[in-house]
Formats: sequence, C-alpha cells, structure tokens
Amino acid sequence: MARYVHKYGGTSLADAERILAAANRVANAVAAGHQVVVVLSAMGGETDRLEGLATQMAGRPDARERDVLLASGEQVTIALLAMALIERGHPAKSYLGSQVRIRTDGAHTRARIEQVEVVALVEDLDAGVTPVIAGFQGIDAAGDVTTLGRGGSDTTAVAVAAALGVDECRIYTDVAGVYTADPRIVPDATRLDVATFEEMLELASLGSKVLHPRAVEFAGKYAVPLRVLSSFDEGPGTLITTEESSMEEPLVSGIAHSRDEAKLTLLGVPDAPGTASKILGPIAVAGIEVDMIVQNVGVDGSTDLTFTVKRGDYERARELLEAVQDSLGVRGVTGDDRIAKVSVVGVGMRSHAGVATRMFDALAAENINIEMISTSEIKISVIVAERYLELAVRSIHGAFGLAAAEAPAD
Amino acid sequence: MARYVHKYGGTSLADAERILAAANRVANAVAAGHQVVVVLSAMGGETDRLEGLATQMAGRPDARERDVLLASGEQVTIALLAMALIERGHPAKSYLGSQVRIRTDGAHTRARIEQVEVVALVEDLDAGVTPVIAGFQGIDAAGDVTTLGRGGSDTTAVAVAAALGVDECRIYTDVAGVYTADPRIVPDATRLDVATFEEMLELASLGSKVLHPRAVEFAGKYAVPLRVLSSFDEGPGTLITTEESSMEEPLVSGIAHSRDEAKLTLLGVPDAPGTASKILGPIAVAGIEVDMIVQNVGVDGSTDLTFTVKRGDYERARELLEAVQDSLGVRGVTGDDRIAKVSVVGVGMRSHAGVATRMFDALAAENINIEMISTSEIKISVIVAERYLELAVRSIHGAFGLAAAEAPAD
Repeated sequence: MARYVHKYGGTSLADAERILAAANRVANAVAAGHQVVVVLSAMGGETDRLEGLATQMAGRPDARERDVLLASGEQVTIALLAMALIERGHPAKSYLGSQVRIRTDGAHTRARIEQVEVVALVEDLDAGVTPVIAGFQGIDAAGDVTTLGRGGSDTTAVAVAAALGVDECRIYTDVAGVYTADPRIVPDATRLDVATFEEMLELASLGSKVLHPRAVEFAGKYAVPLRVLSSFDEGPGTLITTEESSMEEPLVSGIAHSRDEAKLTLLGVPDAPGTASKILGPIAVAGIEVDMIVQNVGVDGSTDLTFTVKRGDYERARELLEAVQDSLGVRGVTGDDRIAKVSVVGVGMRSHAGVATRMFDALAAENINIEMISTSEIKISVIVAERYLELAVRSIHGAFGLAAAEAPAD
Repeated sequence: MARYVHKYGGTSLADAERILAAANRVANAVAAGHQVVVVLSAMGGETDRLEGLATQMAGRPDARERDVLLASGEQVTIALLAMALIERGHPAKSYLGSQVRIRTDGAHTRARIEQVEVVALVEDLDAGVTPVIAGFQGIDAAGDVTTLGRGGSDTTAVAVAAALGVDECRIYTDVAGVYTADPRIVPDATRLDVATFEEMLELASLGSKVLHPRAVEFAGKYAVPLRVLSSFDEGPGTLITTEESSMEEPLVSGIAHSRDEAKLTLLGVPDAPGTASKILGPIAVAGIEVDMIVQNVGVDGSTDLTFTVKRGDYERARELLEAVQDSLGVRGVTGDDRIAKVSVVGVGMRSHAGVATRMFDALAAENINIEMISTSEIKISVIVAERYLELAVRSIHGAFGLAAAEAPAD
C-alpha cells in the first residue's frame, strides 16, 4: 500500500470522456489498495472561456473578482470526478481550496500557499474515502478566494503531497515524461527515467512546459518525489528527485530551447558606475522580466550592453529605452526579436570541463553564429538567430550522445 | 435613499451583453443614491450544461457533488457583474453563499435556508460598496456546499432582503410583471399593479412561472415587499405585498392555468374507512405529488375516487395503482393525461358569493364540460379537457372583466 497524489491537468480533463478516464485511473489505484488524493485543474479551454467573458466586462478585470471567476473552473471538475468515482463504488469527496483549507497570502491572481490543512484528508483516506481537491485555488486570511497563477494546480499538488507525506506525487499530463529535447524538433529524443529538481527547474524555466518551475521548486524544497507521466498511456514517465538519489549522472540531461526571446542592445553606454542600473531600472519598474545580460569590457570610456526579454515585451522595452537614451548619454538602441535560446542542462556538468567547448563546436560545425552566451552551474545557454533553432538543438543533442539507442524507423 | 435587493435570473444573464445591462441597471440605482444588494442566478443555459456533464459521470449523480457542480454557475455571474460595476467606478464585492454566509440545512439539492449573516453586507453598503451575492447556494453546518433547488435564487433574494430589512426586493425577470392571465392565451390580459402574497402563491403554484412559491411564501412570512419587473424595459412591474396594503380588492385578480396535469380514477372503491389512504400511500411513498382529490358519496357500498398528478408521473402512478388494485378490491383503474387545470384566484372572493357560479356559467356558455372541481378560500380550480384550455381561460377572463380597458389594436 502506497499513498499518492494524482494530479490531472486541463488536457487530461478536456471533456466528459477524459474525466471518466482519469476517474478510472484513480479507481484502479484505489482498487489496488493504494491511498490516493486527487488534485485537478479546470477542464481544458475553460479558463480561456472565462477570461474571455471577463474581458467583456472590464478592460482590466478586478483581481479579486477574476480569482472568484477562474476558481469556478476546478469546482466543476472536482465535482464531476468525485461523482464518477462514487458511481464506480469508490467513496469520494470533493474539496474546494477553502474547504481543505489551502491558506494563501492575499496576492490575487498570483497567491502563494502558506499552509495546507490535512486533518480532514487523512481522516478521509483512513476511512477509505478519496479526497478530490480543486487545484490552483486557495483562500486568504480575509476569507477571499485566491488563485495561484500559471501552473498553480501543479503547485497545489506538490503542497498537498508535502503536507501529507506521500510516496509519490504523480503529475498526469499529455506527454509521456521529460525528454532530452523537444521530440517535435529531435525525433530521436529520449525520455529521461530520472531527473533532478535542479535540472527540471532549468528545463522548465527554459521552455520545456512539462512542469511549472514553482511546483518543481516547492517539490525540491520539501523533497517530494515527483513523477511526470502521461494520462493517455501506461508508461513509467520521469521521476524527479533529489540529486543524491540519481543512479548515474550523465554529463548533460537535456537540451532546452525557447523561442519567446528578444534582445535589446544599447550602443556607446558611458562606462561609469550605476549606468546599468539606470538602464534596467525603468524596465523593472514596467514589470518586464530581463533574462540574460551581457556587457563587454569598455573601450574609449564606453561600452555596449545587451539584454534579453520575452518577445511580447520587446516593443515596450524598446520604447522605454528610447525615451531615456538621451538622458543616459547612450549613442543608440538596436534590437532583434527574431532570436531563440538554446541551453544544455545537466547536474553532471558541474564536475566536468569541456561541456561548453563541445556545445560551441557543434554549433560551429553547422556555421551557426552565437550571439550571446550565459552560463550557470548546471546549464549553458546561447542565443542564436531564430531560423537556426531546430538545427542548433539537433546538432547539440547529437554532440552529447542523447539520442535513443534505436531511433524511430521513419 | 432607499435600500433594495436586485435579483437577476438566468434569462437576464444569458450572455455578456445582458450581464452588462444588469450591471448598468444596478449602477444607475447606486448613482441615484440608493443602496443595492445584488443576488444572481447562473447564466441562462449553464445549469443545463452542467447537469448534462453530471449525467455523463453517473446515472444518479451524488447529491453532495451535484451541489458543488451547480454552485459554480453563480460563482461565474457574481464575479462578472462585480467586475462590470467596478469598471463603471462603483465599488463592488462578490459573495459566495459560504462567504455571506447563507447557512442551510444539509438537504443537498433542496436545502432550506436557516440563517443569513448580514454584518458584512451592511458594512459594505455603509462604505459605498455593492455586495453581489450568489443565489441558489448556501453552506451547511459541516461546511459543505448546498443548493436550494428550483427557484432557489428567488428564495436567496427574499432571505437576504428579510435579513437586511430592505425597502423592496426587486425580482428582475423576462416578463413585465404578473398578469391577469397568460398574455399568450389572452391578448388583452392586464398587468396587475399589486397582488397579495396569497394570490401570488396560488398563481405561482398554479403555473404562472413568474416567481417560485417558496420565495413568495418566504416573502409573505417576513413581510418583504416584493416587486416583479422586467430586466428588458422600464415598466413598474407588479408589487406583491400584504393583503392589508392593497388599495382596492378586485373580486378576482387573475386566471391561472396548468397543462402539467393528469387524472387517475379508481372505479368501485370499497366504501370503508382507510381505503383512500391505502390507495394514496404507495403514490406518496413513490414521491409522486397528488394535487386535487375528489371522492363522491358512495352508492351500493362502493364509490369512485379520482385524483390528479403531474403529467410526467402519470404512467408510474397508473402502474402503482394497477399493482395494488386487486388487493384493494377495486373494480378498475382509468385515467386521462390530456387534461388541464384552470383557476380563478383572488383574495376578494373570500367575502363575495357568486364567483363559482360566474365561472361555471362562463364555461357552460362555451359548452365546456367540467371534469373536477376544487376550491379554497381564495381560488376555484376546475379540470377540463386540454383542448378546451385556451377557450376556458379566455371566457373566464372575460366573464370577470379582467381585460385591459383598451385592448391592443390587433
């Protein structure tokens, strides 16, 4: 007998048929003698439908009311899945965030979980009842409904798993696990059996959309064994666990990429203390996230400074810079929103030199120009022109020997 | 300055445009200096959509979970309308049933309101904030979500109005008020300016679908002035109030009708004590509601007993009777599900003789046979063949002089 959290996302709950399939999977685990706590997202597409209604009400819908609106989505799925379990002879009970209770701070639309009360859940499990919990939502100290923002249901699942002390928190999704690269770009990409929390954090934040970084961070912090697996078939998925428990450490675990990138360069920036913060200050105030920042050593008392932002923030960031360029004494502003980021990720590279060299060699062999470089302990990222993205990922994937032993026949 | 409850039903909230129209109506009242508490149903059609999903999960969905599911409907509308008010510069705050709190008993799908806490609502109103409350839903002592059953949002509106002590509880709907008869049958039917709670109860339960009987009963019990009016135009609607406050008392206020009727007759029932209860016992146990019951004086030690049920219960009631007819010593069972009920309603008839005579004369003049008769203090109902329904309603409406002074030109 083991205790699990099963979390099902929107694509696994897109219609009645898929909700029934999720219910069957839970029912099978319970019938096999396991204790299961279920955490659910809204039905696929529902959040977009509700957001669409909200934007017809107000240009910028009130945050408190937006949370009340969006929290209705999981209320529907938990009731439906609980019904389906009961119909199959398995006692079940739905819980809203306010009923669990999942206490959060009061930051509407991006609340943080502060506490999960599990007494009632443990009572249910001991009485043979399967709790079915609304993900994504909580309640603040004032009794107001809050939501956790993007990836919120994953975070709920991990928080509940941490509070309950489960054997495994299983995130059922529409992919069979975490891959060494995006299989749509690299057909012979391999599913990882195991990855560390740190690797997952880098892979997730670099554009592998399997798990939200906040959920991974949370799981790492509380050492919750996390498994990502498909709700559509029976594969083992990928276990995400602490570094120490990995059996072997490959040099590189995977190649991540992101197209959601743009870069901005300030030319002839005065080489004086405080200039960089004067440049990036207005960007931060505008709520624009800056990722990579590169500044070369100055010559003749001035230098060039380049940084990257998400592509959707490019135009606004450029306007902000142009508005202050004269007061900063900057010679000019240039930019490019047709770039992409490619990264190699792996805890193994900590103790190995030569990873960067092998990566740059692979790109050079394909005549791909590297526009920016950024490194951390377990990853190396480069910026290349977007048109080279697929070629770059494939060549690096090959250079590190990540391909499946037997590539698909086609 | 007056204090109002505004209640909007599903047809008044069918899409974004209508929700905005309801928000404008509330905003206008607030801008005119009034205090308004809003109570909302789900968007028109939403409850059916959710019920459809539920029936795909289970043959007979669990009642607790059904309530959780259906309660998501009003959660959507309160958030949307609150957003729209805020966008128009009027502070507003949505409240779920559990947040108000609207405490009910634990009878899922048909819970009864036990208590409404209004401290927070009064604080809001005094601070210039418009509370927007989810109708139809509450919370029981165990913290579970409950729903109030059909017409539940009207009941919520009246309960909130009673607890707050408002000047008027305004029920916005898709009709301009309560009419002397169904305008689709009687083109010159008149809108009533005023009706008593008792009259509304009879009109509502006899098939005028304007207000749910439970809401009217509740309003009468707590003397909440109730006004039914259209959300689509600006008419004064119909004020429903205590008998004493009516300015004048017409003999008859309106002609109600219902097609949802069927009758069953047991022939040759032994004329012995306890027989009627032996007949109706199994019907009651099966949850079938019996309306009119007529038993003639017996001759030769036996009698005929006839009663009416809703049309949808006809087949099952007939089967139940046929199953016990031998043990009861009954000669036979006959029935008819093509009948209709027509009623005259009016508190004025209490003190006037001759109402029944005038009604029966009107039917006789049109050669309409009366199959059953039932009377109470403020109504007289007859059963006629369904094909005579329209003619019966029109002739009685004319006989009591209820037509508008100037009939529509067409």
